[in-house]
Amino acid sequence: VQAVKAVVVASNRGPLSFGLDDQGRPVATGSGGGLAGTLHPLLAGSGATWVAASMNEADRLASEQGLMTEEGLRIITLEPDERIYRQAYDVVSNAALWFCHHHLFDLSRRPRFDHRWAEAWGSYRELNEMFAEAIAQEAAPEAVVLVQDYHLALTGRMLADRRPDLRTVHFTHTPFGDPSALRVLPSRFARELLDGMAGFGATGFHTARWEAAFRSCFSDPELTGGVRSPGPPRTFVSPLGPDPAALATEAAAEAVERARAELATTVGDRSLMLRVDRVELSKNLIRGFLAFEELLQRHPEWRERVVFLALAYASREGLAEYLSYRSEMEHVVDRINEAWGTGSWTPIVLDVADNRDRSVAALRRYDVLLVNPVRDGMNLVAKEGPLINERDGVLVLSREAGAVDELASVSTVVNPFDLVETADAMHSALAMDAAVRAQRAAALRERVAARTAADWLDDQIAQAQPPS
Amino acid sequence: VQAVKAVVVASNRGPLSFGLDDQGRPVATGSGGGLAGTLHPLLAGSGATWVAASMNEADRLASEQGLMTEEGLRIITLEPDERIYRQAYDVVSNAALWFCHHHLFDLSRRPRFDHRWAEAWGSYRELNEMFAEAIAQEAAPEAVVLVQDYHLALTGRMLADRRPDLRTVHFTHTPFGDPSALRVLPSRFARELLDGMAGFGATGFHTARWEAAFRSCFSDPELTGGVRSPGPPRTFVSPLGPDPAALATEAAAEAVERARAELATTVGDRSLMLRVDRVELSKNLIRGFLAFEELLQRHPEWRERVVFLALAYASREGLAEYLSYRSEMEHVVDRINEAWGTGSWTPIVLDVADNRDRSVAALRRYDVLLVNPVRDGMNLVAKEGPLINERDGVLVLSREAGAVDELASVSTVVNPFDLVETADAMHSALAMDAAVRAQRAAALRERVAARTAADWLDDQIAQAQPPS
Repeated sequence: VQAVKAVVVASNRGPLSFGLDDQGRPVATGSGGGLAGTLHPLLAGSGATWVAASMNEADRLASEQGLMTEEGLRIITLEPDERIYRQAYDVVSNAALWFCHHHLFDLSRRPRFDHRWAEAWGSYRELNEMFAEAIAQEAAPEAVVLVQDYHLALTGRMLADRRPDLRTVHFTHTPFGDPSALRVLPSRFARELLDGMAGFGATGFHTARWEAAFRSCFSDPELTGGVRSPGPPRTFVSPLGPDPAALATEAAAEAVERARAELATTVGDRSLMLRVDRVELSKNLIRGFLAFEELLQRHPEWRERVVFLALAYASREGLAEYLSYRSEMEHVVDRINEAWGTGSWTPIVLDVADNRDRSVAALRRYDVLLVNPVRDGMNLVAKEGPLINERDGVLVLSREAGAVDELASVSTVVNPFDLVETADAMHSALAMDAAVRAQRAAALRERVAARTAADWLDDQIAQAQPPS
Repeated sequence: VQAVKAVVVASNRGPLSFGLDDQGRPVATGSGGGLAGTLHPLLAGSGATWVAASMNEADRLASEQGLMTEEGLRIITLEPDERIYRQAYDVVSNAALWFCHHHLFDLSRRPRFDHRWAEAWGSYRELNEMFAEAIAQEAAPEAVVLVQDYHLALTGRMLADRRPDLRTVHFTHTPFGDPSALRVLPSRFARELLDGMAGFGATGFHTARWEAAFRSCFSDPELTGGVRSPGPPRTFVSPLGPDPAALATEAAAEAVERARAELATTVGDRSLMLRVDRVELSKNLIRGFLAFEELLQRHPEWRERVVFLALAYASREGLAEYLSYRSEMEHVVDRINEAWGTGSWTPIVLDVADNRDRSVAALRRYDVLLVNPVRDGMNLVAKEGPLINERDGVLVLSREAGAVDELASVSTVVNPFDLVETADAMHSALAMDAAVRAQRAAALRERVAARTAADWLDDQIAQAQPPS
């Protein structure tokens, strides 16, 4: 990592997360997951400034009590009004922008952009302004400003107006919606979104596909009526990968060893097919289970010989769509286990506890790793698994995951909507000759290790520039 | 219309439709709706050959008893096996291709392409082969063959292989899905679909947008792996319009006059907002009602002063999605009427009977016509209404309807997902100054009358050519 002292990072979730103990006191729960968990080790001790929001009561208390600090990192925690934050984060970011970029709307019924939603967009704008204000105040002259993800898309234009000296970048961790997906948003807000992003010096994406989708939005006059940039904005592609060293350390931890031993008992001498995901509409869990059932139907030789372990921890249960998805998923798993299970064999083991040690242990142990999202910005599981897997496991990978652009030639690629193709891919992965497996697993490891998280951060810093 | 003697038309639904009387005997029910209803008057007496399928028991009996005939038209009725037909028509055409082209899939849950669906695709192929065989047998050398719509997309390649002398055209009456929508289909079938269409001499669309979507599918290597054409296929744009003379005759019929008088009683001296649609997921009925509620909230001056008449006849009730959509729609209407209605005013009058006379009468009478589909190939109601309306009514039109490409400048265009924008458009339409209304209505009539159904048929014949 280059010198990052004059770097400001902004993200919705900050580097430190807190929960409440049984006396209602804030206690650190380690790094936040996902993006913040990736960025934190890269920035720790760098002297960079990190602007983030309090996400809940525990964060707010921790911040009040001066716990949101870390040696060598300047953490600025914003305290948005609760109502503003819920509207910006739940209603706009999670229930609309996430759905838009992942093509998840059930368009005949949802979304319905009424006056309450328009008010929520006002809150989203307000939260973005709060970030832009804080960055504008805190950033040194000509500092590099790295804004992360769709929660903060509007800050580009706001910063360009307030501090045109800053070298700004936006990085999108999700896919980016096609123009027809962006056209679903109320026109004035879609334009504001694109104008906000065009205000950055450069905007980055995990793959050329999401970059192309973003750029093609600028060819649709209905989407760009209010966009102030003269041409399409400057964009770049920089795939994120895990940090191999940190991951190796994590995989060798004692708690992981214990989980690995437990897992050995569960699986026995059967083959292990694994998935590790949030229970998230984009992850395609239900079709994964139905494809496994197709496998058991079409290839009876795998009955009693393979266990499908699904580590699927709960997510966004404040949204009705997620609760009903989880309940349908559990129903499908029960039905399949009843239909196909025997006294000594449970076909699908579904565990919805959030247990990172167990996940890491399972990634070491799988024979087949299923990563079949309907659409996914990158998918780090598809990269973490191969790095630490000890059995030359085969990766079955959705062609709609960003990771496929790097890994297609060393994985078994599937159309995530096609249960037959997915079942056949499971079969060929399970049946793959040991020598071929070993060769592919080595190639896969090499491919993944070629790009680290530090490379990705370096790219962002290198791309940072003043707005055009 | 040019000389069409050596013309073969093929469509799923034929020119004559039958029902069963109470003794189970087939009785003619007049022209089939939609496309067949448009084509029939154009081809009547022309000596053309029309190949279509028996759609149900009544059609089959009529065909057996020699009733599927008409002077001056050579009607060839195919009799597919019932199971084949249901799989091809219900499972593939209506529940998959229609959803694909209209972007209606709720992707986190549907579709699920399992082995049963793959079998249904086999039936779709078989039905297409039945059509291709019949056309290949019946068509004169170098005849013009006009194949209509997504039900018969594969016949292009089949005809190119069997009868390369024929001058073939395919015309798509729906929108065409974006590449990311086509990628949802199992790859081998998506390729077969595009290859089938590329086998026609030319393929036509109602607007440049659907043409562009189709062409861009040919830039996606995952969609075109098996496509045999050297480059993108030959395409053309030819918007369909109603036949003004036929429509004027229909509008002047006595039964329409009676319906018009009844309607006058219902509406009184209130303004009339109207929609006329099938209860179809793409038509966006529910959001139309919710937008009307936004209007009543945001613009209280319209309470008790406007009636929203929705003529929404049942459609595809064999599909669960349509039944549940209808039930949700009825619930929304009841709720709104309870919340806002008074002793003397019912805000929304929903009529689900299929009564063409009443629809035509209402089109003569509306002040505002709402056509707000989430996606629509063309939408003929948006053109029929202005042609026969007698009150200088205003057209509120979705930007996602094909008709908007011709009518944008003479209608009030809305984003169909945005209830606030739709409510504001309703308000400005209802409040529009009489002189402006008159001027716009005249311009709208002129625009619509400029393209007739006969022009559209002429375009197809002119574009017909041997496969490349």
